[in-house]
Amino acid sequence: MYSFIEKRACELAPVLTRHRRNLHQIPETGWNEKETCSYIAAELRQLGYEVLLGAPVTGHETGIIASLSCGNGPVSVLRFDIDALPTEEDSTHAHLPAREHFCSRNPGAMHACGHDGHIAIGLGCARIFTELSSRLSGTIRLIFQPAEEGCKGAGAIVERGWLDDASLFLAGHIVGREYTGGGHADVIPGVNASLATTKFDAIFSGHSCHGAAPENGASVISAMASAVLALNGIPRHSEGATFLNIGRIQGGQGRNIVADRGLIELEVRGTTTALNQYMEDQAFRIIQESARMYGCESEIQVIGRAPSLDSTPALCGRILSLCRDHLPSIQAFGTSAAFRASEDASLMLERTKSHGGQGAFLLFPTDTTAPLHNSSYDFDESILPKAATVFTAAVYQFCGRKPQALSRHRSESV
Amino acid sequence: MYSFIEKRACELAPVLTRHRRNLHQIPETGWNEKETCSYIAAELRQLGYEVLLGAPVTGHETGIIASLSCGNGPVSVLRFDIDALPTEEDSTHAHLPAREHFCSRNPGAMHACGHDGHIAIGLGCARIFTELSSRLSGTIRLIFQPAEEGCKGAGAIVERGWLDDASLFLAGHIVGREYTGGGHADVIPGVNASLATTKFDAIFSGHSCHGAAPENGASVISAMASAVLALNGIPRHSEGATFLNIGRIQGGQGRNIVADRGLIELEVRGTTTALNQYMEDQAFRIIQESARMYGCESEIQVIGRAPSLDSTPALCGRILSLCRDHLPSIQAFGTSAAFRASEDASLMLERTKSHGGQGAFLLFPTDTTAPLHNSSYDFDESILPKAATVFTAAVYQFCGRKPQALSRHRSESV
Amino acid sequence: MYSFIEKRACELAPVLTRHRRNLHQIPETGWNEKETCSYIAAELRQLGYEVLLGAPVTGHETGIIASLSCGNGPVSVLRFDIDALPTEEDSTHAHLPAREHFCSRNPGAMHACGHDGHIAIGLGCARIFTELSSRLSGTIRLIFQPAEEGCKGAGAIVERGWLDDASLFLAGHIVGREYTGGGHADVIPGVNASLATTKFDAIFSGHSCHGAAPENGASVISAMASAVLALNGIPRHSEGATFLNIGRIQGGQGRNIVADRGLIELEVRGTTTALNQYMEDQAFRIIQESARMYGCESEIQVIGRAPSLDSTPALCGRILSLCRDHLPSIQAFGTSAAFRASEDASLMLERTKSHGGQGAFLLFPTDTTAPLHNSSYDFDESILPKAATVFTAAVYQFCGRKPQALSRHRSESV
Amino acid sequence: MYSFIEKRACELAPVLTRHRRNLHQIPETGWNEKETCSYIAAELRQLGYEVLLGAPVTGHETGIIASLSCGNGPVSVLRFDIDALPTEEDSTHAHLPAREHFCSRNPGAMHACGHDGHIAIGLGCARIFTELSSRLSGTIRLIFQPAEEGCKGAGAIVERGWLDDASLFLAGHIVGREYTGGGHADVIPGVNASLATTKFDAIFSGHSCHGAAPENGASVISAMASAVLALNGIPRHSEGATFLNIGRIQGGQGRNIVADRGLIELEVRGTTTALNQYMEDQAFRIIQESARMYGCESEIQVIGRAPSLDSTPALCGRILSLCRDHLPSIQAFGTSAAFRASEDASLMLERTKSHGGQGAFLLFPTDTTAPLHNSSYDFDESILPKAATVFTAAVYQFCGRKPQALSRHRSESV
Repeated sequence: MYSFIEKRACELAPVLTRHRRNLHQIPETGWNEKETCSYIAAELRQLGYEVLLGAPVTGHETGIIASLSCGNGPVSVLRFDIDALPTEEDSTHAHLPAREHFCSRNPGAMHACGHDGHIAIGLGCARIFTELSSRLSGTIRLIFQPAEEGCKGAGAIVERGWLDDASLFLAGHIVGREYTGGGHADVIPGVNASLATTKFDAIFSGHSCHGAAPENGASVISAMASAVLALNGIPRHSEGATFLNIGRIQGGQGRNIVADRGLIELEVRGTTTALNQYMEDQAFRIIQESARMYGCESEIQVIGRAPSLDSTPALCGRILSLCRDHLPSIQAFGTSAAFRASEDASLMLERTKSHGGQGAFLLFPTDTTAPLHNSSYDFDESILPKAATVFTAAVYQFCGRKPQALSRHRSESV
Repeated sequence: MYSFIEKRACELAPVLTRHRRNLHQIPETGWNEKETCSYIAAELRQLGYEVLLGAPVTGHETGIIASLSCGNGPVSVLRFDIDALPTEEDSTHAHLPAREHFCSRNPGAMHACGHDGHIAIGLGCARIFTELSSRLSGTIRLIFQPAEEGCKGAGAIVERGWLDDASLFLAGHIVGREYTGGGHADVIPGVNASLATTKFDAIFSGHSCHGAAPENGASVISAMASAVLALNGIPRHSEGATFLNIGRIQGGQGRNIVADRGLIELEVRGTTTALNQYMEDQAFRIIQESARMYGCESEIQVIGRAPSLDSTPALCGRILSLCRDHLPSIQAFGTSAAFRASEDASLMLERTKSHGGQGAFLLFPTDTTAPLHNSSYDFDESILPKAATVFTAAVYQFCGRKPQALSRHRSESV
Repeated sequence: MYSFIEKRACELAPVLTRHRRNLHQIPETGWNEKETCSYIAAELRQLGYEVLLGAPVTGHETGIIASLSCGNGPVSVLRFDIDALPTEEDSTHAHLPAREHFCSRNPGAMHACGHDGHIAIGLGCARIFTELSSRLSGTIRLIFQPAEEGCKGAGAIVERGWLDDASLFLAGHIVGREYTGGGHADVIPGVNASLATTKFDAIFSGHSCHGAAPENGASVISAMASAVLALNGIPRHSEGATFLNIGRIQGGQGRNIVADRGLIELEVRGTTTALNQYMEDQAFRIIQESARMYGCESEIQVIGRAPSLDSTPALCGRILSLCRDHLPSIQAFGTSAAFRASEDASLMLERTKSHGGQGAFLLFPTDTTAPLHNSSYDFDESILPKAATVFTAAVYQFCGRKPQALSRHRSESV
Repeated sequence: MYSFIEKRACELAPVLTRHRRNLHQIPETGWNEKETCSYIAAELRQLGYEVLLGAPVTGHETGIIASLSCGNGPVSVLRFDIDALPTEEDSTHAHLPAREHFCSRNPGAMHACGHDGHIAIGLGCARIFTELSSRLSGTIRLIFQPAEEGCKGAGAIVERGWLDDASLFLAGHIVGREYTGGGHADVIPGVNASLATTKFDAIFSGHSCHGAAPENGASVISAMASAVLALNGIPRHSEGATFLNIGRIQGGQGRNIVADRGLIELEVRGTTTALNQYMEDQAFRIIQESARMYGCESEIQVIGRAPSLDSTPALCGRILSLCRDHLPSIQAFGTSAAFRASEDASLMLERTKSHGGQGAFLLFPTDTTAPLHNSSYDFDESILPKAATVFTAAVYQFCGRKPQALSRHRSESV
């Protein structure tokens, strides 16, 4: 059966490339993925999936849950993220999407993080699952998640219970070759070193007055300046890397008025959830006290939060063996450089593990033309069928109908 | 002749009130005073003035110079400021302009600093000068100045040479009774205690990078925070009051990006030009060095600058005597509380004095309903003819045709 | 009787100079004035005063109250401060005390603020009062106050009730000619423009740990740095001058240890007691919140506090008239430049006024060789008898036995 | 021959323990190790070493170079550090040195970092080398280095050329079991993860003036506060851990004086020399610019500096094999947890490598009672002969006379 999966994925390669290029032209940023969702839903319905869209999935207008029932058995969940970035795409000839005419048609938005590829992989998996359905047990649930950037979408889906019954959870990301130290591999099963993160806004309120009688006011600009310096100065932690970035600041109304409203947009990160919590705790205290120091008030709005990715080791080991033993087209690599990014798939992973399920986050290394989030980012599309192969095979390994599966397995592996 | 001036001003009171109320309905902020200028120009041309508008006056589209030639003799300049504030006017019944239906018709703009009254006074003076013209010598030049708020308009006019030949310069401001310690007076001739000021922007440039590899960037938000605290901390000066206000701050693009562009809008003030210069010197150094401290660069753009008002004492004394001896309808007061505001008329005053001319800035106290710049600000219009009386009489005192003037003067004062 | 006072003060000039020079050689800093007190007490006892020393006066070992009973009548209090400064005296020939061999014999201490002169004036008054005693009514109470520098001694005396029954309170200070704008005067009766002040220490406690695991600590150095910048940035007050000085900072134990103990020594001032209170309130809040911002704790210890000097206007007027009408040897000046120093005599003055008494703080301008507190400071000793004259005459004016006094007064003034 | 080394070291165990306990009683801090040096020199001379002490070694009064000539051949250098810490030793019964009466006799000083053990190991090696001398070639140079704490002594020795001809360099440190993850091992040959460090003082100069005329001054306390916050805020580096600690701050003279002199004592660290350099570069710039921001000047005095330990990998591998193959009494461990301390042996290591030599820094794990630098620190002395075994055997492996050595080697290893 694994060789069937490999063959089908290979045959579907042109279809996955076409999907990816169609989607690349309609990039939509977080919570705005309407056209993208229409495209995905149409494909999935055609394949016979039961499709839910929008509010029941996320409480917003976008997001899709597609289900395939394969009789009694466990729930296997795959997650694919679908949002684009607020970036203007490179339109020069050097950029392949420009050269081959599938550049973004939405000014100011671009699939610069590979999520167009992720959707194509998801549609490929969806197709193969329908072909395999008689050999599978339980429920296959495909989540097409909005608003991964900023770590907002996963939480909305988890809150609505979509991971509460998951026995298996898989997600992944197309990445560059730097994650294999420049070496060759198609998949790194299980990343344990992403950055946990909290993204939040600090809103300051003070008192306005004329700048030549400043004793009557309380300036949020002073309070924010003090907060910025103290936030930058949160002590490093000896147990691992931590980061803090103050990305935006704004405050005040006019040159001769003491400023009474201000906003800081920031994020903290840590190589573990505990280190991120340390940063969050320190930051929250500093914001509160810096406001008080200047007679101002503060409020914190958490915009997104994600723990670090902590894949189930046993599952990672099984996927590694699966690739080595049964998927000759797939080269797997046991360890990776640290994944220095944050991913809210970790929220789904944590929920799955919380009731005894297992999960893994896979990296799919391939040639890329620029760093993630860059306007010239592009990736080698040959990774699409390979990723679909790994996901599908891993699900089959998990919930394939065992007696037959086992017998075939044996004959295949001989 | 002085009694003639008093009488005419008194008769013109209803006209001045009408002008003021018409103008109150069409407030326009700095450099946007087009309808206001049309109104003023039409009135002045009807009175026979030679009128210049816009570019030759200020290099912008607004601003008026009106000239009346009275033969050989000195140039006497009167300046009236015409711009409104970006304030929404109070529309409740308690506010007289609302009750009497002459509220602002321009949403978001309001004559909350009395400049509508100043224009009305100027039109009153213009009328009386035409009636007195055979008794005057030299040139009467009336300047209707845009963009006084922010101290931008006067400099533009001075740069174009309109004060280079002035022998007499007069300007003034309607104020509340607090300037006479609550006592009664119609005019305080000569204020020496306004606040010199410099209004400027500090523009910071750094280097952008991803927030989880911050060693590659240089954050303007950090640099600006350090600048804000150091600017707030410029030492007080033992020789007089100084002020600094950081009115606005903004910087950065996205939460996970190190910020590479930022802006601080601020102003400094001092009770003397030297004290303001002290603040400016300190502030400029702090901005430069705080940027360097964080590997950033800074640029300073001066938006407006005004020295303190330093009226010619002898002229002030003569105007005081004039009121006491010859203008029974006008009560004059010798000294005032400090005028805690900044006024770019000081630039015209300094230019006049630089070539030996003399000048004074007059305060016209009257009942007011709220502080200057407040959305409920209104003033008692009975001050309009009184201010026109003082201005006109002071010009007559300066350049009235002397032999006749002197003889009449004597007979009148008997 | 006024001419008697003038004559006696003049005759006592050599004695006062001798006292001053003796005392100049034994300068003792605040609360250490033991030899000084012995000297004063011996003189006063010889004159017949009832003398209290130390604990009953101040709760410390130094400080003197000397009383002269003159029958029924009000309590008149004169205060003379006695402490020296921790300054090494100039020993070069250019410095008169060196040249004439009465330099400080106590290394590291110097009468650089004229208190040696103040004591001499007090001893002169004491002598004349005994000679006048039959003409006086009530009680004359002379306070020789320790620890004026740092504003510590007056509070200790006021707390013990020594001003609770005062009907008249007088104190004063020898100053340079700059207080008369360089003009000549011997006394300026009544200063209303000293600086109210609070002198205090901020003590910070944090948590110590190794510098390479700083997440376990809470650094007081960070907290103090944030406090310093915020304290410097307390907004100016539009109603008058305020000052803040952070004079000393220290904290930490070793280079690789996170600092857990630190100290800031600072003071605030304001031209009125209310302005000083504004500064104190802001500073206290900033210290508390800056400590909290870094997970530290803070404590404030007030070392000294003095309101501004607010002499009774009517009393000042009477002393001015007294000099002009009855003391030909004394030139009096009605107004002074601001006394830009702080004086804890204000605490005695406030207590006197609180129960209906009246008081004044007098300046005694004379030639000086250097600013107050400078190691080359010296003053023209001819001011000593003049100051004694003014104090004695003012007390006589207040509680001289009226019928006789009045008749003599008249005959003398003819 | 290796079994001879093992046997001799084992026999010398009581001697090494005696040396260690003798030395433990006379702890001396950096550059004050006079009695310690006398002890060491006496022992070495008795063994026949040529001993240099003080100035020729370090330019100071302490430090020893002992040489043993074994004919032609390479120079092998071993370094043992000898200074104690300014710590008061625990004198309770729970502390073995107290219980067994070899506690520090020098109040305020304690061997709390195991250097007493290091000296004992060095004396053991010295003894065995003399016994092996006929089997060795070249020169054996033993360095007993003062002032390792603060990273001061090694640089002084390197500057004088004592490593310029070294072909082999070895040094090491007794550590706790946490470096083996709690497992058992006697040596970890080759640490590559110490922290590079720079220890330095920042001296600020400003301008003093009276606190009520602060415009005339330039406060170092303000400049230092700004520096502290910016130093704390040096961005984390994505390539590895960095640290900065501001251990001490002091500045100012008196409460009412603007402070004109101040000092910050600090250190930076990084897991690589490059990361430490990044911190140093940022810190130096911040100090310079923060001073300028406040019109002050700054100076930096580097007190100590050490690169990270970067042992020669091939040498580490050979020592590991040596232990496993030829030293049955020694358990070796290939990798260690990060050595989160700084060591100036790295300066000697770098100099050795700079001309083609090889070197390694060894950890000797053993049971300990408290963290390094703690007043209750003690270690299991059974590590002493084991460490001497490893050092001696490694030198023999490097410069043992080959023909014989090889033959014996073979016979022994059978």
